[in-house]
Amino acid sequence: MGTKTLNFSLDEYAERLRKTRTAMEKRGIDTLIVSDPANMHWLTGYDGWSFYVHQAVIVPPSGDPIWFGRGIDAAGATRTCYVESENIASYPDHYVHSSERHPMELLGKLLVERKLDKGVVGVEKDAYWFSAAAYETLMAGLPNVKFTDATVLVNWQRLVKSPAEIVFMRKAARIIELMHERIYEKIEPGMRKCDLAAEIYDAAIRGTPEFGGDYPALVPLLPSGAEAAACHLTWDDQPMRNNEGTFFEIAGVYRRYHCPMSRTVYLGKPSETFLNAEKMTWEGMEAGLAVAKPGATAEDISIAFCDVLERYGIKKENRVGYSVGCAYPPDWGEHTMSLRRGDKTELQPGMTFHFMTGLWMEDWGFEMTETVLITETGMECLANVPRQLFVKN
Amino acid sequence: MGTKTLNFSLDEYAERLRKTRTAMEKRGIDTLIVSDPANMHWLTGYDGWSFYVHQAVIVPPSGDPIWFGRGIDAAGATRTCYVESENIASYPDHYVHSSERHPMELLGKLLVERKLDKGVVGVEKDAYWFSAAAYETLMAGLPNVKFTDATVLVNWQRLVKSPAEIVFMRKAARIIELMHERIYEKIEPGMRKCDLAAEIYDAAIRGTPEFGGDYPALVPLLPSGAEAAACHLTWDDQPMRNNEGTFFEIAGVYRRYHCPMSRTVYLGKPSETFLNAEKMTWEGMEAGLAVAKPGATAEDISIAFCDVLERYGIKKENRVGYSVGCAYPPDWGEHTMSLRRGDKTELQPGMTFHFMTGLWMEDWGFEMTETVLITETGMECLANVPRQLFVKN
Repeated sequence: MGTKTLNFSLDEYAERLRKTRTAMEKRGIDTLIVSDPANMHWLTGYDGWSFYVHQAVIVPPSGDPIWFGRGIDAAGATRTCYVESENIASYPDHYVHSSERHPMELLGKLLVERKLDKGVVGVEKDAYWFSAAAYETLMAGLPNVKFTDATVLVNWQRLVKSPAEIVFMRKAARIIELMHERIYEKIEPGMRKCDLAAEIYDAAIRGTPEFGGDYPALVPLLPSGAEAAACHLTWDDQPMRNNEGTFFEIAGVYRRYHCPMSRTVYLGKPSETFLNAEKMTWEGMEAGLAVAKPGATAEDISIAFCDVLERYGIKKENRVGYSVGCAYPPDWGEHTMSLRRGDKTELQPGMTFHFMTGLWMEDWGFEMTETVLITETGMECLANVPRQLFVKN
Repeated sequence: MGTKTLNFSLDEYAERLRKTRTAMEKRGIDTLIVSDPANMHWLTGYDGWSFYVHQAVIVPPSGDPIWFGRGIDAAGATRTCYVESENIASYPDHYVHSSERHPMELLGKLLVERKLDKGVVGVEKDAYWFSAAAYETLMAGLPNVKFTDATVLVNWQRLVKSPAEIVFMRKAARIIELMHERIYEKIEPGMRKCDLAAEIYDAAIRGTPEFGGDYPALVPLLPSGAEAAACHLTWDDQPMRNNEGTFFEIAGVYRRYHCPMSRTVYLGKPSETFLNAEKMTWEGMEAGLAVAKPGATAEDISIAFCDVLERYGIKKENRVGYSVGCAYPPDWGEHTMSLRRGDKTELQPGMTFHFMTGLWMEDWGFEMTETVLITETGMECLANVPRQLFVKN
């Protein structure tokens, strides 16, 4: 093996670790067990489709993090994590999907060996992948530990992006531009939806001549007509129809960094419903973006947007956005800041969020969204795609 | 809304529910809470990319299952589940990724309302998506319930496929054939790996002129050369090189049903290492397939395969296969039968498994695998792709 392929400098990983340890200290956490693959990636560089088995990154009180995972994934960890091989610990294959053995028994033993089986240990209690069984097994093996919930502790450290991360986000933005271009070029009545989904993937993964694209944390969502009321349906093989609107909830991705952006395409002469949706969403977004600057809060954007919609008689109950950055399936959201009433998170330069203004009504859906970077003085929409309802006759 | 799009007959869903209830009764389980999206889909038809928020299907002692999920996903549930709207229960959006509220509080209340807050309730303790926090919240809300671990209870009911499911698996097999054809047609030295990944997706999602493809539960894995020692790396944008082997771990998918199949392509004149890997894998597979018939056990196939490899001096420590069928990310395995020593599961007609014979060595990797259906008299490899090392000069 030997060759390491790191996306960021060692200094950047050191800074991420420092921020995480500061947050741990504030919470009185001695050792942190990280299960969220995006957090594992952000802390160590680890990358691989291995999150269907139990794995973790352990942040001890001092020294490098420790990667813990399945034996056959240790080679991938050696290649993608900045840590040295003594901090790559793996478990044998008969612990995988076994009803008699659980990998967390061995994670417990590892903590004992490394003398980390004491004090306060943080776990991500509500992370996908940190199952109830994982927690029970870990508790049984570490009787001297006081466990505490550290869900989203690392996620919050990811909220403000570094300059190097913003470079990645900008590359993802170039890719999403090409994806929407491709949709508009190819979409037509009679085309099977699966063929359009294939075009979207093609644009996403080829990326640009200078750099390729990565897989998105969500598959493309592209419901049409009445089915667009159901916001998380995927595609089928039925033909696109005239006189229907279809929204495209998609993201460009560069090395795990996501730039989501939705647009809606209407085939034929758009109905009043769609023209109104475009108009009020546009006005609402203008209002929201106008208040998006350092010092304002997440809820300010939401209130500005929802106030406009309410003037049009629409009460939007769900949040209008969330923080984004590096991500793994099933979600490109960071699970920290939400643009909704009550979220007082103060906006700071370097934050990136998906201004997710989708409308899912009784028998139609409309999405026109932006990924926004907070700058020193205001904000910047990362991708440049006309903010409008696309119409193809 | 109104329109339902069901993949299987109501009789088939009734039979699945009956099998599940029989298994529940054997375990003394009154009510079952199902968190695994593939189990939710199999039991009710529910389909949607919504598993990044808490959701469940509840199987009460009698009557139809109940879908529980996020408000904005109820429309998708109405459309894809066979159950009527009184059995679609949803929670408001401020429960999503909140640090103060947890959706499982409301699932607890739902069980109280439906008078299911008593007796023995089974939960999938080690399912992804059933987090430690979900379990703690549920326990707090249901003090009169005795919880028991029902991980993989439903998965085991999925092991033997119905004729209708086998029709879906065969369609997935047609798609994987086209995917390997595409790879061999397009691969060449100098081609960026991301462009090859785009071709694979294109073939997967377009499917055939008669039916389209669905998204796979794992992204394509296609490591080359020394990096193929790391079996779960995804792609990058570097050029394919001459004198390197690349394996393709991919699946054709039709309406969530997976037919995985791996092949390895060598660019240039293959090294002895690859020719040997082909030879011993081929012989091992012949030996394994020869014993694959009703009445034999899962371990028999594994022992037959590993015995051949051992004669060649290779000790394979990991399992050589697992049951497959309908699946959602992050895994297309069913988490039940594994082809490994100690697994005494008796093979029965209608079982489908991925005979996963991959070799991941110090500085190379080789995969040549089959998805196998157990028939009345023996077995059938579902897809028809030459079982060989592909070489392109």
